[in-house]
Amino acid sequence: MTLKLGVIGTGAIGQEHIRRCNNVLQGAKVVAVSDINVEGARAALQRLNIEAEVYQDGHQVINSPNVDAVLVTSWDPTHEEFTLAAIAAGKPVFCEKPLALSADGCRRIVDAEVKHGKRLVQVGFMRPYDSGYRALKKVITDGEIGEPLMLHCAHRNQSVGENYTTDMAITNTLIHELDVLRWLTEDDYKSVQVVFPRVTSKSHAKLKDPQIVLFETQKGIRIDVEIFVNCAYGYDIQCEVVGEEGIAKLPEPSAIQMRKNARLGNAILTDWKDRFIDAYDVELQAFINDVKAGQLTGPSAWDGFAASVAADACLKAQNSGAIEPVEMPPRPTFYNK
Amino acid sequence: MTLKLGVIGTGAIGQEHIRRCNNVLQGAKVVAVSDINVEGARAALQRLNIEAEVYQDGHQVINSPNVDAVLVTSWDPTHEEFTLAAIAAGKPVFCEKPLALSADGCRRIVDAEVKHGKRLVQVGFMRPYDSGYRALKKVITDGEIGEPLMLHCAHRNQSVGENYTTDMAITNTLIHELDVLRWLTEDDYKSVQVVFPRVTSKSHAKLKDPQIVLFETQKGIRIDVEIFVNCAYGYDIQCEVVGEEGIAKLPEPSAIQMRKNARLGNAILTDWKDRFIDAYDVELQAFINDVKAGQLTGPSAWDGFAASVAADACLKAQNSGAIEPVEMPPRPTFYNK
Amino acid sequence: MTLKLGVIGTGAIGQEHIRRCNNVLQGAKVVAVSDINVEGARAALQRLNIEAEVYQDGHQVINSPNVDAVLVTSWDPTHEEFTLAAIAAGKPVFCEKPLALSADGCRRIVDAEVKHGKRLVQVGFMRPYDSGYRALKKVITDGEIGEPLMLHCAHRNQSVGENYTTDMAITNTLIHELDVLRWLTEDDYKSVQVVFPRVTSKSHAKLKDPQIVLFETQKGIRIDVEIFVNCAYGYDIQCEVVGEEGIAKLPEPSAIQMRKNARLGNAILTDWKDRFIDAYDVELQAFINDVKAGQLTGPSAWDGFAASVAADACLKAQNSGAIEPVEMPPRPTFYNK
Amino acid sequence: MTLKLGVIGTGAIGQEHIRRCNNVLQGAKVVAVSDINVEGARAALQRLNIEAEVYQDGHQVINSPNVDAVLVTSWDPTHEEFTLAAIAAGKPVFCEKPLALSADGCRRIVDAEVKHGKRLVQVGFMRPYDSGYRALKKVITDGEIGEPLMLHCAHRNQSVGENYTTDMAITNTLIHELDVLRWLTEDDYKSVQVVFPRVTSKSHAKLKDPQIVLFETQKGIRIDVEIFVNCAYGYDIQCEVVGEEGIAKLPEPSAIQMRKNARLGNAILTDWKDRFIDAYDVELQAFINDVKAGQLTGPSAWDGFAASVAADACLKAQNSGAIEPVEMPPRPTFYNK
Repeated sequence: MTLKLGVIGTGAIGQEHIRRCNNVLQGAKVVAVSDINVEGARAALQRLNIEAEVYQDGHQVINSPNVDAVLVTSWDPTHEEFTLAAIAAGKPVFCEKPLALSADGCRRIVDAEVKHGKRLVQVGFMRPYDSGYRALKKVITDGEIGEPLMLHCAHRNQSVGENYTTDMAITNTLIHELDVLRWLTEDDYKSVQVVFPRVTSKSHAKLKDPQIVLFETQKGIRIDVEIFVNCAYGYDIQCEVVGEEGIAKLPEPSAIQMRKNARLGNAILTDWKDRFIDAYDVELQAFINDVKAGQLTGPSAWDGFAASVAADACLKAQNSGAIEPVEMPPRPTFYNK
Repeated sequence: MTLKLGVIGTGAIGQEHIRRCNNVLQGAKVVAVSDINVEGARAALQRLNIEAEVYQDGHQVINSPNVDAVLVTSWDPTHEEFTLAAIAAGKPVFCEKPLALSADGCRRIVDAEVKHGKRLVQVGFMRPYDSGYRALKKVITDGEIGEPLMLHCAHRNQSVGENYTTDMAITNTLIHELDVLRWLTEDDYKSVQVVFPRVTSKSHAKLKDPQIVLFETQKGIRIDVEIFVNCAYGYDIQCEVVGEEGIAKLPEPSAIQMRKNARLGNAILTDWKDRFIDAYDVELQAFINDVKAGQLTGPSAWDGFAASVAADACLKAQNSGAIEPVEMPPRPTFYNK
Repeated sequence: MTLKLGVIGTGAIGQEHIRRCNNVLQGAKVVAVSDINVEGARAALQRLNIEAEVYQDGHQVINSPNVDAVLVTSWDPTHEEFTLAAIAAGKPVFCEKPLALSADGCRRIVDAEVKHGKRLVQVGFMRPYDSGYRALKKVITDGEIGEPLMLHCAHRNQSVGENYTTDMAITNTLIHELDVLRWLTEDDYKSVQVVFPRVTSKSHAKLKDPQIVLFETQKGIRIDVEIFVNCAYGYDIQCEVVGEEGIAKLPEPSAIQMRKNARLGNAILTDWKDRFIDAYDVELQAFINDVKAGQLTGPSAWDGFAASVAADACLKAQNSGAIEPVEMPPRPTFYNK
Repeated sequence: MTLKLGVIGTGAIGQEHIRRCNNVLQGAKVVAVSDINVEGARAALQRLNIEAEVYQDGHQVINSPNVDAVLVTSWDPTHEEFTLAAIAAGKPVFCEKPLALSADGCRRIVDAEVKHGKRLVQVGFMRPYDSGYRALKKVITDGEIGEPLMLHCAHRNQSVGENYTTDMAITNTLIHELDVLRWLTEDDYKSVQVVFPRVTSKSHAKLKDPQIVLFETQKGIRIDVEIFVNCAYGYDIQCEVVGEEGIAKLPEPSAIQMRKNARLGNAILTDWKDRFIDAYDVELQAFINDVKAGQLTGPSAWDGFAASVAADACLKAQNSGAIEPVEMPPRPTFYNK
């Protein structure tokens, strides 16, 4: 039984997911797509050598009787609408981040899903599917380093464009840590503070870069995340967990060690797309498998909501300079595992 | 278009490949299997929840009109016969190593394939599909370390059973290096010598362990391979290429670095099956894709023959203690790329 | 010309320095010692097979016409008195940390030295003499990583005794970072904040362990120092400097890499005395050489004062939970280099 | 009591040792020197700001009543003569390598020393004083990796001049491994073979570079040493010991790890003088201390002889291409420890 997918939005990520589903993954195929630019959608399918229904309106994809499950890869402001529509149609939906433009929007999705009575939504956070993070989580849950007390993290990009502003360090960059660190620690944020080091000369007028975001969790874990998006040297994701018994560190990406030109070392990635490229495959395959098994297990609408609430607190902390609370309502039992 | 596969032999490796084709890989499914133990074959299919024709005789699989391509995973002594039969039937065939029990047998397959006029055979050497070896080869072919001059390699197992004899260090263990190092250097062996260090106390009566195999290639590269199959500490594959400009080293498997109990380090694999687990998937997916594209590109019958000739020379060198020539006939232009 | 040294206080550190000066270092010898326990002092000299004048009162050492320079290794509360006396006598003095029990005490020494008109005091901070920190500083001053923006540091001990209290994490442990990070960055602290993660179960009633101390410097560098004195796994000093162009990291202590028992790694030190053992030699040799060259260059009374002021601010921040200013008066031009 | 040293030969190494003894080490001073170029010797002393007797003839240094012990740092062909003269005078002598120009010459020194009845000679092999090799030996003798079975070594120089010939790879380069590997394994060489990979394009007419030297020891350990003196990338000494229980590796020189320009790594030394710079200090300090203690413990005349015998066998193996025996006479009990 092949899972028949509909894809809403055939921009860069949409095309990437279509290619992935039809040429790489197992057990699914894309049978319908939509894009406000219908001709662009047709051209994309032709390039990918894929036959599928083509619509202008995402709701047509959702409602197509051929479509078993939906991928939302459209313009961010439309995510909430299409995800809610998929829930209304009772169809599983994989929605790229952000789930919605606001915490309130995420909450509406949570409420709709809870009302529906069964999980239908997976948010496109791929890091929990990265083999390095999974190995790190296993070390923690196996008790190899004892109870986690502190996390030291960094999210560094080689450079960003002029249109990247200070708040985007939270909403576009830190958002991945906001999700994966909750998942890693199985904990929720309690408060957050943002401090600004001297600004790198490689930044520009609208961006205070780097930033350090400091969290306290409900269990009392302290997390520091350095965000440095003009770090110059490469794309680099670091995560070190300090536990009562020892320390575990996210692996560096595999690379050829070389001795050359009086240096011993290896290449660092420079393109973020290469860093989690395998994780995207694993993530979407897991969605396909989980849909077919009748039980979603990946990042939920609640996880999307939680990341959104935390991001809002971070933005407030950027502006206030103070320690800001992260006000999470109680988790519906619906989302307990 | 799904490629329909027939699998001859449903032992451990056969079942593993069936599972892989049907549950992990893309674009193929197993439609027929055979095993001299028909009931065992049926039981295996049931466990895997797969429906397929079941035969007692591999030739029935090859000749089934439903079968587009064949996987030979039967008892080693039958590999040559079934591979020849697949060639005769004009069907692509993936044959697990060894391609045949002797260099002569491999040669017969080469001759049959050349006579057929088109590549139909891929041998089950998976290391060229390992991401580490591929990255290493890229570094070499990109000229990053200049012309290769020396290779320092090691193939270490934690331990082997009592039935593992000195010659098996060549035929079962070194055989992988014999293939992958030819592929890595794009070179052929010229001579080989084997030296025996003092024997580890962890070995047993029929096994001189460790051994060091020393090759000279046609281009004059010197290769040393340490084979140590009771190394006690883990399963460990090392490969370091010394070039005119620098040195490149096969990456260690990705692992969580830990600080614990006054040690800084990471786990070493102990089970060989975990080391190249991803490579098996990539290897078989490549076979499937290449068959569908109408052009095999993986390890060829000639590569199987070359490994067999080299292994014979190694065995001779084990016994003689002398430097033994590796007598390779000229490569048919058929196998030029 | 051999420099004749007087040592005040023949406890553990005193004896260690006597041994070092007479048996390891070059160009000096201990000619006089004092201890309130005169018999103990005599016994120590006998064990070390060293002949020297023995006094009960440190002032007698300072005033001995045989003594060219003084080492103060007595009980902490006496450091200020003896250092002031050495200045009054116009004799160079190496005083183990702390220079005085309070910032005010340090300031009195600074004022006396400035009044004297020439540097006579070196404080026993040894990390600037560690080869790793020196190499790290060279990388920074050579501009290899651009302007430093952030420092991520850790000071971890395997365990501490029941008498170690929360404030001692500052006064006994962080005190080394307080000095070496000023030296490394050539900068002064502007403010400090202390946050407390959940307490490790390996701590005890009087100690909140771990702690994270967050500094902002005058130039705007942000520094975080994790202090974790019951980290269980070893003695570990980490320092990573994030600059505009790249990141440089304090080297791990040299160690034999081993593959054993399915682990790849090396030993971590467990005894702090082993970590900077070479630095103690270099430090005292530098003092000897500088005294003979007529110009002290090591950690000054002003550096001792600065560390003391910073420590006071840290202690205040531990209690207040707030961001506390580090109020440093202007540096006397006397201490400019 | 200061040990009074006489130094024969005030060339580069001689001056370096004079500086070392008088300005760095403890417990000795140079009181007499000689050089066939007396004016050069005087100028050197003046530059070093050292007062000492100056002679033209090394025998005058040996016979000066002021001189307690002798350092031979003169032209290689004179080493044997001066070392024999020192033995005749009953004075301890530190002789830079080579101890003599031939194995026969070394043997004459051995015989003279044995006849004298007490060790007087230390050969200038410094690697046993390197902290890395010492740590490696400790791991072995502590039994941490079980009985050593194989050693994989490399001695690489960035480049050598036109006057460096194929045999010098043995006599100037490998000579250090010939000594230190005997010391490390507490074993003697039984046979040796040399193989030549394709020659690097960076070599020149008189030099086959690289070379691989293969030893079997008396205990059956197999050792391979890659000698590559135009390796282009730096000065690099590698030594890996494979034992029955695990593997231990000589540490890389301590270096600052950096992330910069899309590379993660550290500098490799390029100048051989930097690699063992600390070992030279430790070596000579040990000689001084051992002379004062009345018992030499460093590399002996026998060790110099053994290295010379092994080097002769290597040279023969370079030319014959065959496995050549290393014919060591029985060790006089005089040299047992």
